[in-house]
Amino acid sequence: MRPPTMPPDAPTIARAQAGGEALAIICGGGSFPGAVAEAVVRRGRRPVMFGIRGWADAAVIERYAHHWIAIGQAGRFFRLARAEQCREVLFIGTVLRPPITQLRLDWQTIRLLPRVIRSFRGGDDKLLSGVAGVAESGGFRVVGVNDVAPEICVPEGVLGRYRPSARDRADIARALDVIAALGPFDVGQAAVVANGHVLGVEAAEGTDQLLDRIAELRRIGRVTAPPGVGVLVKAPKPGQDRRFDLPSIGPLTITNVARAGLAGVAVTAGATMLAEAEATTAAADREKIFFVGVREGMAS
Amino acid sequence: MRPPTMPPDAPTIARAQAGGEALAIICGGGSFPGAVAEAVVRRGRRPVMFGIRGWADAAVIERYAHHWIAIGQAGRFFRLARAEQCREVLFIGTVLRPPITQLRLDWQTIRLLPRVIRSFRGGDDKLLSGVAGVAESGGFRVVGVNDVAPEICVPEGVLGRYRPSARDRADIARALDVIAALGPFDVGQAAVVANGHVLGVEAAEGTDQLLDRIAELRRIGRVTAPPGVGVLVKAPKPGQDRRFDLPSIGPLTITNVARAGLAGVAVTAGATMLAEAEATTAAADREKIFFVGVREGMAS
Repeated sequence: MRPPTMPPDAPTIARAQAGGEALAIICGGGSFPGAVAEAVVRRGRRPVMFGIRGWADAAVIERYAHHWIAIGQAGRFFRLARAEQCREVLFIGTVLRPPITQLRLDWQTIRLLPRVIRSFRGGDDKLLSGVAGVAESGGFRVVGVNDVAPEICVPEGVLGRYRPSARDRADIARALDVIAALGPFDVGQAAVVANGHVLGVEAAEGTDQLLDRIAELRRIGRVTAPPGVGVLVKAPKPGQDRRFDLPSIGPLTITNVARAGLAGVAVTAGATMLAEAEATTAAADREKIFFVGVREGMAS
Repeated sequence: MRPPTMPPDAPTIARAQAGGEALAIICGGGSFPGAVAEAVVRRGRRPVMFGIRGWADAAVIERYAHHWIAIGQAGRFFRLARAEQCREVLFIGTVLRPPITQLRLDWQTIRLLPRVIRSFRGGDDKLLSGVAGVAESGGFRVVGVNDVAPEICVPEGVLGRYRPSARDRADIARALDVIAALGPFDVGQAAVVANGHVLGVEAAEGTDQLLDRIAELRRIGRVTAPPGVGVLVKAPKPGQDRRFDLPSIGPLTITNVARAGLAGVAVTAGATMLAEAEATTAAADREKIFFVGVREGMAS
């Protein structure tokens, strides 16, 4: 069992804010920025939140020392982060590739624009490594969740009450193979396999849409595997920069896996972020599906 | 330009029915069984249609010598096809993997059941090669569309008024690479790539659903490539048995490509069936998108 993840209390936050090495956390949407900040505080570091306007949740950001920035404001970020004495920066949370017309560029960013534009061609990996390059050009070290808060990631082993069957394990291995095959194309952090049959591969649509599609294909009879057969597997792309965009899982994923009629979900241990660990495991038990962290390189 | 594909007239059909070597055509749904029968008649052979109940279109089947069969009635098919003096059999048209509970098995099929059951595990390729094995065990030679009616397939080159740009050609090459990478998993006859970014990969859902998804992702701003950027590519899986289940394209595909905001569609020449050639090309011109047949092995 993982320890319960109560938010740190006000005195703990105050102590961390007073001392500890500063860490700039550039925050997109969702609950992970808050979870990471809590873990960072528990480890005695001082988080400085940089909420991305339009994405970050004010209620999360404003618990800590914080600033608001817009995408494209590298210069403003450099100035504020240096003033806060941050030397390391972490990117966390959801930010979708913005339409070019919505970018608000400052002069520092415009100076770096050729690099940023190159990073907008191709897949997410290129985009993110371009963003990392920008941060590094400002003298910051880019770190990942695994460096500063590894407890946010799914551990290895069975997390709930149910275990994958031999057939489920074969489906998991096949889905991991599919994800590995798509690695060179910077796509596909998830796949659904039932009885050896690849039912769905995630590209731009995200895991929840992938699962909705499986549920719908089952409803209209296009997927004929009986309920309780099939697995969702999430894994980082091979060669992916682990400092960014790790796959994640939470209670909603579990609900959608159950709605899609699958037997369970497997994710790469140590490389998949887990939102609300207890609620996620409880949801798996309630839906009678398995939830496992598998060792990397388990593909057949 | 392809010659216009008017249905053969009654005297032509009558002549073909009287003479010519018989060809058993096992017909699923859609318009391809009719198009293949017309081409076969034009080449002087005698089609004998075996409509699969629940899938084949009676209006198409009943133009020719015909019988109705159900999935699982291998014995009945063997008996009827031998009486019609067919030595070759072609499978054509849509038949989705039926739920086991809907199968109606005859004794001949039950004798062959271990082979059929093996073929139901894994992907479509295994299913189809299992079906071919059943037909061959009855003494029939299984042929493909390319053997008896190659004019049904898309030729190489630009088919409409619009041509792919250099960027489109790069996206086409990348999509072909994605499809090739998924070949070992018996999945993915189609992919959508925009500006080097893989937006979607087809698995169990079919091409029209893939395109609906791209249209929706664009509508909600999750795909930010501007309209007119991106390609749909369809290609047979590497190693796929070309006697079955070639990818196909028709006017509806073109309409959906346009609705998804893509620049055009590329398919493998000689290995993609084309429904309603003139209507499909006319739709591409009307929607101002390109439609090309690309040489196999054009992947980068």
